[in-house]
Amino acid sequence: MKRRQFIQGAGAATVAAGTLVSGKAMAAPEYKWKMVTTWPKNFPGLGTGANHLADMIKQMTNGRIEVKVYGAGELVGALEIFDAVSRGTAEMGHGAAYYWKGKSTAAQFFSAVPFGLTAQEMNGWLYHGGGMELWQEVYDQFGLVAGAAGNTGVQMGGWFNKEINSVEDLKGLKMRIPGLGGEVLKRAGGTPVLLPGGEIFPSLQSGAIDATEWVGPYNDLAFGLHKAAKYYYYPGWHEPGTTLECFINKEAFEALPDDLQAIVRAALRVANQDMLAESMVKNNRALEQLVSEHGVELRNFPEDVMRKLREISDEVVAEEAQKDAITKKVYDSFVAYRAQVEKWTAVAEQAYINGRSLS
Amino acid sequence: MKRRQFIQGAGAATVAAGTLVSGKAMAAPEYKWKMVTTWPKNFPGLGTGANHLADMIKQMTNGRIEVKVYGAGELVGALEIFDAVSRGTAEMGHGAAYYWKGKSTAAQFFSAVPFGLTAQEMNGWLYHGGGMELWQEVYDQFGLVAGAAGNTGVQMGGWFNKEINSVEDLKGLKMRIPGLGGEVLKRAGGTPVLLPGGEIFPSLQSGAIDATEWVGPYNDLAFGLHKAAKYYYYPGWHEPGTTLECFINKEAFEALPDDLQAIVRAALRVANQDMLAESMVKNNRALEQLVSEHGVELRNFPEDVMRKLREISDEVVAEEAQKDAITKKVYDSFVAYRAQVEKWTAVAEQAYINGRSLS
Repeated sequence: MKRRQFIQGAGAATVAAGTLVSGKAMAAPEYKWKMVTTWPKNFPGLGTGANHLADMIKQMTNGRIEVKVYGAGELVGALEIFDAVSRGTAEMGHGAAYYWKGKSTAAQFFSAVPFGLTAQEMNGWLYHGGGMELWQEVYDQFGLVAGAAGNTGVQMGGWFNKEINSVEDLKGLKMRIPGLGGEVLKRAGGTPVLLPGGEIFPSLQSGAIDATEWVGPYNDLAFGLHKAAKYYYYPGWHEPGTTLECFINKEAFEALPDDLQAIVRAALRVANQDMLAESMVKNNRALEQLVSEHGVELRNFPEDVMRKLREISDEVVAEEAQKDAITKKVYDSFVAYRAQVEKWTAVAEQAYINGRSLS
Repeated sequence: MKRRQFIQGAGAATVAAGTLVSGKAMAAPEYKWKMVTTWPKNFPGLGTGANHLADMIKQMTNGRIEVKVYGAGELVGALEIFDAVSRGTAEMGHGAAYYWKGKSTAAQFFSAVPFGLTAQEMNGWLYHGGGMELWQEVYDQFGLVAGAAGNTGVQMGGWFNKEINSVEDLKGLKMRIPGLGGEVLKRAGGTPVLLPGGEIFPSLQSGAIDATEWVGPYNDLAFGLHKAAKYYYYPGWHEPGTTLECFINKEAFEALPDDLQAIVRAALRVANQDMLAESMVKNNRALEQLVSEHGVELRNFPEDVMRKLREISDEVVAEEAQKDAITKKVYDSFVAYRAQVEKWTAVAEQAYINGRSLS
């Protein structure tokens, strides 16, 4: 992500990344904040998205808030950031809500669930369909202010060393796929495998696993997965528009004057939009490269496979919703919105994109 | 648009729309700006989007910038805002870039062209694909800072009193459709008609015109068009994701300190995302109402009609690009990006939405 993108345009020449160089010094920081993240420092798209957010806050507050970004493990471990921000060790945390399903099952609905919402649909639900208020209700329990801070767009279905021509081909399939997507694969007869990032590539290459999902072309290319698998399947039915988040310690947030609160919230909104815009551009370039330079074979999941996966996904997600009252409340809002927005998407994005691609 | 949406969440109770009520008075405005708009005051979605933008700027600057919003005709006429901001009569203007094709043919590419980009694709081009830099180059000629400030999403194809079953049915069709869309209809054998807003409804009802396009379900329902036509066609091939804009007098913008410049740019980005999120939610509710309460018949343009319209659209847009060097430069960037992003959209949004809708 270009950190300067945000301030580019007519006045860009006078502004450098992160600091203002107009001759006037920035104010000394009134608030020195820490942002802990679930990403390796500067991880493309996600870690750089966290940096971008910190830069914007500094620029807009003229240095009154300074946010130092920590990669996973630098201050606390990747999966410890939720607790760290909750207890005030750091003021901000950058991750994805489904990592916290152990804290609250409901959290998963604010990142991605199988056969859920696209990025654009998700933003409708969050900002104008009651989603943000529910997210806040869930995070209130942990003393956190909830916020969306990025979106990967539709992810890819994953890398496979065998073709998937029917539902039968999922049987016995050993695939690295975490979370609810993994549960869906299991019920379809496959074997979901959990592997840390570093073991994915060798396991795929050795045949210890038959397939893996990761993110999308841009991140997958950087990870080298095309060197270990032949077929690249789409679409990412299990993560159709994953929302990233930046949560804030509530006490720290409420101690800010109103203008700085408004700035922090706006910076999150910009970060949310910007990561999606960046993903669009970088994924489409990387896809081109994977296909034309690396000879990757793109494959669409067959229709009967998509139908079956949706059927199982709807069951799995509905069962998940029964775990507690707040999850049920979030689920009810989410599925009611999805049922309605699917009808609008059908006459809008779907009809247009299908019509445009006829020629 | 809920003006409070932007600041909603944990701290919402302490903040009211447009003013801060935390007990601490806002600073006296250092910059008193005027925003002139092409919309009637408080026009749903578009005019309210302009208000929202002004509110955000006030909140984030703690009142240092105060922006007074004027509806069309209050200070200058709707189509005079470009000149008014260019010469400094007002500091900001809220409209859509295709209104200024008489100033620069290239401007149209920054709002919508037939068979162009969806909202999500457009944001990719603008923020990470070189689009914003080109837009700025075009507006530099007029002393303006360019900025995207909203998106309607895919519009609807329009209201028809006869069915469109083939390309033949477009012949002789009298339809209110302005701009490049109108030129496409003309080449398909129809008769594009220009009518001011107030004459559309009576003309459709009396049969003086056979069809009209407007925006999408939310705005169309408010306009009452379902009372004058039977069929509601989709998709809006002529406006697949119309970007709204807010341009700023360059001298006024550059006179701002860097932090306030960054805030104004961020407010535009938030407004851009927020209008799309609001459109998703309001359009899908209005669509439901049109169909179930008002008995509107939804119709998809047939495939051969879509194919023909795209073929003609590509010709019309390519011819438009030949008018001057800067338009050619913008066109080249736009069509190169579209050719590439269509491939990514095919495996991402298109494959996912189609797969999800199989069940």
